[in-house]
Amino acid sequence: MKKWVYLFTEGSDYPQGIGGVEEAGLLEMARIGIPVPLGFTISSETSGAHFQGGTIPRGMWPQILGALEWIERQTGKVFGDPLRPLLISVWFSASLSAGGAELNTIPYIGLNDKTVRGLARLTGDPCFAYDCYFRFIQMLGLVQSLEVSRIQVAIDKIRAFQRQGTFPTVKALRDVVIGLKDIYRQRTNRPFPQNPREQLRTAVAASLRLGCRNQIPASLSSSEVTCGKSSTVNVVTSVFGNLGARSGVGVVYTRNPLTGQKTLYGEYSQNTYHEDVIANTSPPQEVAGLVKYMPEVYRQLQDVAGLLEFYYRDMQEIWFTVEQEQLWILRARRGKRTANAAVRIAVDMAQDGLITREEAIARITPAQLGQLMHPHVAPGARERARLDSSLLAKGLNASPGVAYGQVTFDVNKAEVWGQVGKNVILVRPEILPTDVHGMLLIRGILTKRGGATSHAAVVARGLGLPCVSCCEAIQINEKERFFQVGDRVVREGEIISIDGSTGEVFAGTVDIVVPSLDEHVYLRTVLDWADDICVRKGEAREHFPHGLQVWANADCPEDAERARSLGAKGIGLCRTEHMFLQEGRLPIVQRMILADTEEERQTHLDQLLSLQRSDFEGIFRGMNGLPVIIRLLDPPLNEFLPNYEDLLLQVAEMSFHGDCSTELNEKKRVLEAVGRIREANPMLGFRGIRVGIILPAITRMQARAIFEGACNVAREGILVRPGIMVPLTCHANELGLVRAMVDSVANKVMSDQGIQVRYKFGTMIEVPRAALTAGQLAEHVDFFSFGTNDLTQTVFGCSRDDAEGRFLLQYIQQGILPENPFQVLDQDGVGSLIKAAVQQGRVIRPHLEIGICGEHGGDPASIRFCYHIGLDYISCSPSRLLTARLAAAHAALNTSYAE
Amino acid sequence: MKKWVYLFTEGSDYPQGIGGVEEAGLLEMARIGIPVPLGFTISSETSGAHFQGGTIPRGMWPQILGALEWIERQTGKVFGDPLRPLLISVWFSASLSAGGAELNTIPYIGLNDKTVRGLARLTGDPCFAYDCYFRFIQMLGLVQSLEVSRIQVAIDKIRAFQRQGTFPTVKALRDVVIGLKDIYRQRTNRPFPQNPREQLRTAVAASLRLGCRNQIPASLSSSEVTCGKSSTVNVVTSVFGNLGARSGVGVVYTRNPLTGQKTLYGEYSQNTYHEDVIANTSPPQEVAGLVKYMPEVYRQLQDVAGLLEFYYRDMQEIWFTVEQEQLWILRARRGKRTANAAVRIAVDMAQDGLITREEAIARITPAQLGQLMHPHVAPGARERARLDSSLLAKGLNASPGVAYGQVTFDVNKAEVWGQVGKNVILVRPEILPTDVHGMLLIRGILTKRGGATSHAAVVARGLGLPCVSCCEAIQINEKERFFQVGDRVVREGEIISIDGSTGEVFAGTVDIVVPSLDEHVYLRTVLDWADDICVRKGEAREHFPHGLQVWANADCPEDAERARSLGAKGIGLCRTEHMFLQEGRLPIVQRMILADTEEERQTHLDQLLSLQRSDFEGIFRGMNGLPVIIRLLDPPLNEFLPNYEDLLLQVAEMSFHGDCSTELNEKKRVLEAVGRIREANPMLGFRGIRVGIILPAITRMQARAIFEGACNVAREGILVRPGIMVPLTCHANELGLVRAMVDSVANKVMSDQGIQVRYKFGTMIEVPRAALTAGQLAEHVDFFSFGTNDLTQTVFGCSRDDAEGRFLLQYIQQGILPENPFQVLDQDGVGSLIKAAVQQGRVIRPHLEIGICGEHGGDPASIRFCYHIGLDYISCSPSRLLTARLAAAHAALNTSYAE
Repeated sequence: MKKWVYLFTEGSDYPQGIGGVEEAGLLEMARIGIPVPLGFTISSETSGAHFQGGTIPRGMWPQILGALEWIERQTGKVFGDPLRPLLISVWFSASLSAGGAELNTIPYIGLNDKTVRGLARLTGDPCFAYDCYFRFIQMLGLVQSLEVSRIQVAIDKIRAFQRQGTFPTVKALRDVVIGLKDIYRQRTNRPFPQNPREQLRTAVAASLRLGCRNQIPASLSSSEVTCGKSSTVNVVTSVFGNLGARSGVGVVYTRNPLTGQKTLYGEYSQNTYHEDVIANTSPPQEVAGLVKYMPEVYRQLQDVAGLLEFYYRDMQEIWFTVEQEQLWILRARRGKRTANAAVRIAVDMAQDGLITREEAIARITPAQLGQLMHPHVAPGARERARLDSSLLAKGLNASPGVAYGQVTFDVNKAEVWGQVGKNVILVRPEILPTDVHGMLLIRGILTKRGGATSHAAVVARGLGLPCVSCCEAIQINEKERFFQVGDRVVREGEIISIDGSTGEVFAGTVDIVVPSLDEHVYLRTVLDWADDICVRKGEAREHFPHGLQVWANADCPEDAERARSLGAKGIGLCRTEHMFLQEGRLPIVQRMILADTEEERQTHLDQLLSLQRSDFEGIFRGMNGLPVIIRLLDPPLNEFLPNYEDLLLQVAEMSFHGDCSTELNEKKRVLEAVGRIREANPMLGFRGIRVGIILPAITRMQARAIFEGACNVAREGILVRPGIMVPLTCHANELGLVRAMVDSVANKVMSDQGIQVRYKFGTMIEVPRAALTAGQLAEHVDFFSFGTNDLTQTVFGCSRDDAEGRFLLQYIQQGILPENPFQVLDQDGVGSLIKAAVQQGRVIRPHLEIGICGEHGGDPASIRFCYHIGLDYISCSPSRLLTARLAAAHAALNTSYAE
Repeated sequence: MKKWVYLFTEGSDYPQGIGGVEEAGLLEMARIGIPVPLGFTISSETSGAHFQGGTIPRGMWPQILGALEWIERQTGKVFGDPLRPLLISVWFSASLSAGGAELNTIPYIGLNDKTVRGLARLTGDPCFAYDCYFRFIQMLGLVQSLEVSRIQVAIDKIRAFQRQGTFPTVKALRDVVIGLKDIYRQRTNRPFPQNPREQLRTAVAASLRLGCRNQIPASLSSSEVTCGKSSTVNVVTSVFGNLGARSGVGVVYTRNPLTGQKTLYGEYSQNTYHEDVIANTSPPQEVAGLVKYMPEVYRQLQDVAGLLEFYYRDMQEIWFTVEQEQLWILRARRGKRTANAAVRIAVDMAQDGLITREEAIARITPAQLGQLMHPHVAPGARERARLDSSLLAKGLNASPGVAYGQVTFDVNKAEVWGQVGKNVILVRPEILPTDVHGMLLIRGILTKRGGATSHAAVVARGLGLPCVSCCEAIQINEKERFFQVGDRVVREGEIISIDGSTGEVFAGTVDIVVPSLDEHVYLRTVLDWADDICVRKGEAREHFPHGLQVWANADCPEDAERARSLGAKGIGLCRTEHMFLQEGRLPIVQRMILADTEEERQTHLDQLLSLQRSDFEGIFRGMNGLPVIIRLLDPPLNEFLPNYEDLLLQVAEMSFHGDCSTELNEKKRVLEAVGRIREANPMLGFRGIRVGIILPAITRMQARAIFEGACNVAREGILVRPGIMVPLTCHANELGLVRAMVDSVANKVMSDQGIQVRYKFGTMIEVPRAALTAGQLAEHVDFFSFGTNDLTQTVFGCSRDDAEGRFLLQYIQQGILPENPFQVLDQDGVGSLIKAAVQQGRVIRPHLEIGICGEHGGDPASIRFCYHIGLDYISCSPSRLLTARLAAAHAALNTSYAE
């Protein structure tokens, strides 16, 4: 005969639990010795056909009755006895949700018009008794597909009391019970069953039927009721925490969910019950209080916590009831925790041998790391800001972190204010490359225009500054020095706060939490493990000696230092143009560009040579022994020149005023030159190595600065590993030509200096043609580095700066694009191109070193892709290094997580 | 024993000729009965080792001597006899070129200090005799690697006479002979051989050695002497055209090389000789004169011409000598001809059955067609212009054809002048889309800036106007109304000429030849054959029902009409934006763009609807039965708006003057709007279907105009075959969305009008992502059309407008790029992407119709590529249709030609 019913105490390994995957099952808990209430599980391993009609399969009911009698014997309580009423709940795994609450229990079966009075006497609390009764009737109605709306009307009467802050009277509760029974009779044509066994039979049949259905009953579907697929039913004795001072209920975490500390953490309420929606008579206390009051219960709770952690190998959230000093565990599930706690718990558990290091790493999400490492708005502050209207606007989250400071609209003023120690937030329509000097001492940037690869964003991320860009809602009046959002005016000098992780802009200050890696012993431990895993997994793969390494983008010695301290294994992108933009250098650069003759140009280049060389020396020293890839000059030349329209207006104004000074003539000359140099589509114009080929003196100067710097530092006994990278390559011939130039400079410098430095020569792949002809390119180079920002722009035919404000975000909202391709690498388009290029390149040169150095180097999904196509490294901005190190290990472990 | 020597008269089929592949061999000519001088061929089919040392293989010399004696017997002349000297030439196939002349003959062997006097007596012309002698010594020296420079010094003395317009004296010639013999002795340590047999042996040995060498002797290499690889040596009796009035020399073409007419065409000079560098005693006369003077010789010449044409199956250029009424043919080779003649000759020969139609087509090059169909500078005019300094400058050949007219710098003036019938050349820094209205009645365009896809160029090609762009040398002063090239000033109203095929700009008029297709009966015939061939070849291939069809790009009914008359099989690209730019419409378009509300926008769109509809109706009528592919609005919106900087200056100026009129406010409003809409990189910005999705009212209006127009025209009984094409697609979801919009409008219009029109829906592929995800795109569409202009720009990451003036041309000059990728499709990069997309697309949808509609549709090499990857059609501008039709047939025939 088929066995339908399994007592919890049987210790059967019948496998079903209740609830989601993260929740432990009662049967399972019982088996490992957790004190769960008496009860049994009903197997539903049979055709669903039985249940559709609401009938119970042959042979099941007698087994249920047998189990019930066993419970009566064990508890000394009797089903339907008003003096010692046995109450039970049916828990089913098809969860219904109605009105926002999840309902998967039919509670307090056994209550009827008589036993409810018995319960009232027993607990001394008639309100509690009637509350239980009405909940029972309500759920039995719901699982039988009665109309939710009509049931709701009855319950709303109870809710009305709560809204007024008072308790419903016993009379009100009784009235609800009467109302619900009426509805039940009207809809089922039968009175609400008073016989507890009939109640149980009805409840079990409905639960089994619900569990087998995939479709939602019509009467429920209109009311947000959903129905799961699995179909386990548990019958559990009700236990009561409101049977006096030695009773109570609590929720406890096996470790502190805020800090991860290894102590029980939670709350306990004396003489109450979990479904305490009506009364809140005893305020909760820390669960540690039980040590004194009921030390045996507390010890038992500690044992349970230890057992559950050992068994489920993670921190647990435990719901329990103490019924007259008897501990009952009702539910246990994976406990939610802060990022902080997650890291500490994972490390502690791995160090205690409870989990492996791999599991520890897999349990931390990149999002948690992001939370940990960026300053963030303190909990609650955001909600307060919404309430008091200090949340002004929302733009693009261009560079993470939170900052507050005084508003200015003027780059020079920002610089001066920064020097005198003011907190400054620079607010601009957009940021130009020439503005960089003003950004070194400020706290954050807010721009009206520009996407997440705008100068504002790129520079901000490079400097680790929070930045909100593309904040179209603000109207900037530079002349009158204020900005406006709707009617709200913010003047220069007033304080605002920005959250670059969310794009929010606040008036005034918000509470900020600032973390630091030094404090994060646990985080550092777990990231070191992550690096180890990458190396170990890498060793097993061909052409992949280090696994996927994480390098950083850094443009100056300070950045390099920071990157190394955050665990970068190399500099994957050193942008030399940022050195050109520093104050004091820009005028030389401008004179170099506007030079009339090659001789004049060379004079200015000679001046730049020594400046660049000392920058490189600083970086080489900082990265001792690690590779440093230096990209030759990349941007269009007019990025170094004054703005054309500003000049145009200046010249017009001076001419109008009859000025005929030499200053005007000089301005006219510059205007003419800028007009000649500026382009219709600068991104696709005269930039990158195109400049370096047409004006080879620039390339030679840069090569000389690199090799002279490298020789000088090598002489100090430091291991220098420079790589020279060609930007915007589109034809193999470009590489042949530039390689010859670079090699010739290298040979000359090294022979002059009498010291040899090994270097690599490589190319960016950032236009599709480079990727499509990767085999040809590989003939000339030691490494490839995919510039995924530009590659995404050219593959989509979409300039990020122009697109984000105009259509890209709308495309994502409308579902035309699944994600922002500038944040998450587009695998179908850009990715397929990269993958093919990697294959082609390695056919020609099997040990070609390949990495990426775009924004995507910091994005976990993109890092996973890079791992799978066999890249050697990813290079990202220092602020995303930790996330990237974690994500690289996740990729190696093939960890999946929902972010 | 090996046979080394073949007498011409033996009729052997020993296959070698002399000279290039296009030149007939003497042995071969002799075999078919052409009267070539007596002589023999020496085989060199043996290891080259023999010849390297200058030795003649065993057994060869006796055979040569035998043949020589046979010649002496036949001619009655004797080698070395001063009275009846036999002179022979050695012709070798390794051609040496020195001082610009091709030397592959050692002439007049047999001359020595005695026989030279005999020859002088025989011809009565001692100058001739010594001229022959010095040429012989010179060549025998050259083939023995004597120093060219020293030989040249001697010869320069002769040249000096010619430069002065006089003849060298006998004494001067004798001095040269003495000088050359001295050099010969000094370099070889032997006197110049006087024994004719020794002379011959030396000449043959040197010729054989030269023929076997791949490397150039060191002493020659410094002097531009090159050496071929094949190694046939002919020994030929010298014949003389200067033996009196019944002797002479001539060159004749078997047909007229200018017109192709079937008559002998050429010149004959009495009593002279071919190497007539010294004397020019008898000016040449038309060869037809021989009919009267020596009718038998003329008849014989006609026979020879007929025989050679029949044998070599092409028009021949024949060099002949008449020695005392005996006709000797010295050389025959494929005759050079004009484009005109080439077409007529090919058609005539095919119609006469001499060649097949396929051969006729294969013999015409696209370059010839280009010459035929564009107005061009008359022969000689270009050289005159260079001499008289009227050639002003050279820019980019942006749109072919020649035009002259009065210069103006003002678009509006150009329009007015055009209306009153003036010839106008518009000279502008660059052309803006808003200038189009001024370009409809002008003759040509000259711009300082802009590449070959600049507006100027695109519009010019569309209108069939000659255009020179990117002419950096001209300095335009719009205010003072002149332009300047160096010191040369050209004022408004003065006449210039431009040649859009070469990029040249001339002061004043140049003589122009203007062809017309109507006159070109032969051309029309050959192009019809070309179309037939494409169809027949296509029938043999899968998915390729018509072979490669040639369609045209046309934006208005007039263009469509013209395209059809030039043989277009469909309209592959109808750009709707050009309709927006027409005068009277632009203000509506601007109001539509600047509309504050959707209602306002819809009002203006409604106005545009009827205008667009009537355009479409015109095109549908014109193309009755042929497909018309209409591209939805493509350019960035700010192309329709006033220039930002102009507005900026206007507002600044008005503000300076204290203006506070409503006009200023309106201008400020527009300035603000234009500022908001303009983009950093408009090519990669808010354009194409991105606009059509964010502002769907535009898409719906265009769809409605198309379907209403189609229904109206279909009701007239005309077969309408519209295709709707989505521009700048980068994701399949865009197509899904737009297809739903278009289908819904189509259904509504057709149901309202009660008439059904079948239409196709397709997409441009002009960004790499579209190509990379072609399989996904194919799910949504009936056709693909590759926009190779934009695709080239995005694949290279290179905006043509910005690139051409700055680095692209230099890249090509430096050999970094083999060709301009905007003219010739880059097969490695862009091509590989297209090829993969075609394959992916056809996997999903085997009958997907695929074409291209970029500039490359008119380029022969690109058309060949399109054929080989299996495209269905190419669409090009009407002006390139004929070339394209020819090139398509060439591709089908796998014809190769050097352009």
